[in-house]
Amino acid sequence: MAEAIRHDKTSRQLRMLSDALDSGRLGPVRRLVNTLSPAEIGNLLESLPPAKRAVVWGLVDPEDDGEVLVHVGDEVRESLLADMDPDEIIAAVEDLDIDDLADLVEDLPDTVIDEVLKSMDRENRDRLEQVLSYPEDTAGRLMNPDVVTVRADTTVDVVLRFLRLRGELPEHTDHLYVVSRRRQLLGWVALQNLVTHHPNTPISHLIDDSLTALRVDESAESVARQFSDHDWVSAPVVDSTNELLGRITIDDVVDIIREQAEHQALGAAGLDEDEDLFSPIRRAVRGRVVWLGINLATAFLAAFVIGRFEATIEQIVALAVLMPIVAGIGGNAAVQVLTLMVRGLALGQVGASNASILLWKELRVALINGLLIGGLVGAVAWIWFGDGLLSAVITTALVINFCSAALAGTLVPLLMKRMNIDPAVAGTVVVTAVTDVMGFFSFLGLATVILMR
Amino acid sequence: MAEAIRHDKTSRQLRMLSDALDSGRLGPVRRLVNTLSPAEIGNLLESLPPAKRAVVWGLVDPEDDGEVLVHVGDEVRESLLADMDPDEIIAAVEDLDIDDLADLVEDLPDTVIDEVLKSMDRENRDRLEQVLSYPEDTAGRLMNPDVVTVRADTTVDVVLRFLRLRGELPEHTDHLYVVSRRRQLLGWVALQNLVTHHPNTPISHLIDDSLTALRVDESAESVARQFSDHDWVSAPVVDSTNELLGRITIDDVVDIIREQAEHQALGAAGLDEDEDLFSPIRRAVRGRVVWLGINLATAFLAAFVIGRFEATIEQIVALAVLMPIVAGIGGNAAVQVLTLMVRGLALGQVGASNASILLWKELRVALINGLLIGGLVGAVAWIWFGDGLLSAVITTALVINFCSAALAGTLVPLLMKRMNIDPAVAGTVVVTAVTDVMGFFSFLGLATVILMR
Repeated sequence: MAEAIRHDKTSRQLRMLSDALDSGRLGPVRRLVNTLSPAEIGNLLESLPPAKRAVVWGLVDPEDDGEVLVHVGDEVRESLLADMDPDEIIAAVEDLDIDDLADLVEDLPDTVIDEVLKSMDRENRDRLEQVLSYPEDTAGRLMNPDVVTVRADTTVDVVLRFLRLRGELPEHTDHLYVVSRRRQLLGWVALQNLVTHHPNTPISHLIDDSLTALRVDESAESVARQFSDHDWVSAPVVDSTNELLGRITIDDVVDIIREQAEHQALGAAGLDEDEDLFSPIRRAVRGRVVWLGINLATAFLAAFVIGRFEATIEQIVALAVLMPIVAGIGGNAAVQVLTLMVRGLALGQVGASNASILLWKELRVALINGLLIGGLVGAVAWIWFGDGLLSAVITTALVINFCSAALAGTLVPLLMKRMNIDPAVAGTVVVTAVTDVMGFFSFLGLATVILMR
Repeated sequence: MAEAIRHDKTSRQLRMLSDALDSGRLGPVRRLVNTLSPAEIGNLLESLPPAKRAVVWGLVDPEDDGEVLVHVGDEVRESLLADMDPDEIIAAVEDLDIDDLADLVEDLPDTVIDEVLKSMDRENRDRLEQVLSYPEDTAGRLMNPDVVTVRADTTVDVVLRFLRLRGELPEHTDHLYVVSRRRQLLGWVALQNLVTHHPNTPISHLIDDSLTALRVDESAESVARQFSDHDWVSAPVVDSTNELLGRITIDDVVDIIREQAEHQALGAAGLDEDEDLFSPIRRAVRGRVVWLGINLATAFLAAFVIGRFEATIEQIVALAVLMPIVAGIGGNAAVQVLTLMVRGLALGQVGASNASILLWKELRVALINGLLIGGLVGAVAWIWFGDGLLSAVITTALVINFCSAALAGTLVPLLMKRMNIDPAVAGTVVVTAVTDVMGFFSFLGLATVILMR
């Protein structure tokens, strides 16, 4: 219900905009668009088909262009950049923060990158090059080198004077960093403490050194986890010698968390999280056909297993009617176990120390579910085909397949993790291949042995 | 790779802890546990089987008990509360912030709730009751009524004096709220501006009134979206008369975003996001069997369709071998479309205004993929069974089923949204039922018409 309200709001905006676009009245469109934040404009552009997207993009205030580019997925970004000439791109990106520019820079045409670098002052150019020297998805790439530092041997009053002279602080500054002469990080002081303590208070009394800083080579995933474990708004980044290099802020972390979530949801269906809703057909086909091809290979494997039992099916055609039930329900059960394991692995809750306990638990759950669902299917099959032995065969096959599902659902993600394969993306194909093959094999195999005597 | 590092770190902790527990040396366990933040302890407890969980929970510093309870899923929370006596629970929760306490209160035993309310001072009790009066998953329930307010007709210097007198500020205070005498919200002043402006500056010069406040009845989903659209750290909550009621902070928003992500990933497999990895067997069975039962119903529907063609299968047993391919690949294609639509709906990017364009795009993608995959399957079938007509039948059936997949994948989530059913949870069952039924029906139906003449 609650979600419906929010949905209504956005889709109302979308409809208003769409109507205005259809009628060719661009004035209202421009006014509507420029009341939105860059992230909202990005979201709006992603929801428009290519022709309308180009029109609306042309109406966005050039001042917001850079921020909008930062907020859209890779595929949509490409389509927006394609509509801009080099001068527009340079104007759009040159005022961005270093971390945002670093995020964008690889999607820019080479000639534009050179121009952008030339237009920057030396300090910012050095900073950008430093950030770009770290691998993607590490703290170094996420950080902004623009930090406010103070010395320990001073007072609140002196720091306040310094800040007044300095003027505006970088966004989301909630701490000032206390560094030594050689820029080693000694600790940090909350802005809150500056405003609640007497001007004479020495800074050294206000230093918080209880938290550890982020290491520049830490993964984005680890950065995100630490932000949510410690409820941080910003955190300093240091190198191996504890020299302060920059800081990461919560807004970038929120983006990481959203991306991780999308990665799990879309990856499980073989999709890329940057896929544009309105991808050109050719691109959409290319993006999906590989995944379908992999699934096809496993489907042929299952078909091959069935093919081994052609003679049996010829005799008892009821087997053909019932066999998809055994395979299908087994697949559902396996995906449930897999999904729990993938989440547990992502949260670091599953490892060698508890894998066997989990496996044992899942096997017991599978046995009970297998008996319940298998019993029900057996009863229906008996009524349908009036054959008690057939009914016993399908119940047994389902119990076996539920146990295969528990085994595959538990062990496949653990093995993949060890082999550095992402189980959120590759898990489903493998576990359903196992339950398909085991489902057909156990059902048709048992039928051949028991019913064909 | 990067993820592996982080994973190694947590699983190393887990292994160390597990070893120490096994050897009965509780001293090291206690020391290890109490170096962690409450959120990390919560994560650790969730990764332990019940017996070890109870031991470690007993070793947690009682001061952290309340925060840990806030950070675990509902099911694990219940198991932890079951290990505590009423006095311990009261001691654990009485120092929590109002918003955290509101989150916890419904899981507490009634007698404990009364005691907790009695132990609070009048002001906090009134605040808690106010927060609890709003429905779950709305801004009112997420907010903390503890805010720092100032008047517009004063100066930076006066405000700094006031803050020094007041002492510690609520966590994540990045803005002070400017209110009228009747607590109407007039705007807010960034802490950053207080420290960078001259003491004589009038507060009225620093007020930012460009942003709209959150309404107390807004959904949690909408709150989260606005935080990430505007890069907020905190935001004020007002009622319909613009009276300031409290504020929401980014840490709670990060939790909402994580929960939404888990909801989509786990909901698609029919799981509850609060499911404990180590649920008691009975509970795990109950949680999963309903979902499996629903899937079973659709599997029987598909079996019923196959049953209509028993005579055909009896004649051409190759159909039984190939039919799971048609149904299965169709299901994969449908889930891809569904997943994109569910994301688009969640982001408000899909609505009445672009549904028909999306449907048309998906139909064209389906046609091309159907021809590619269908052609490949047809070729393999021809080689396998040496029957050109059979090959033509399966290719045609696959093209038809890809188009059904596009239709179902696009329209089912739109219809569910309109009917207030969550397509992230219910979508997969319905679209795969459609592709199963259409797959078997088109393949066996075409075979009956074309091959059985």
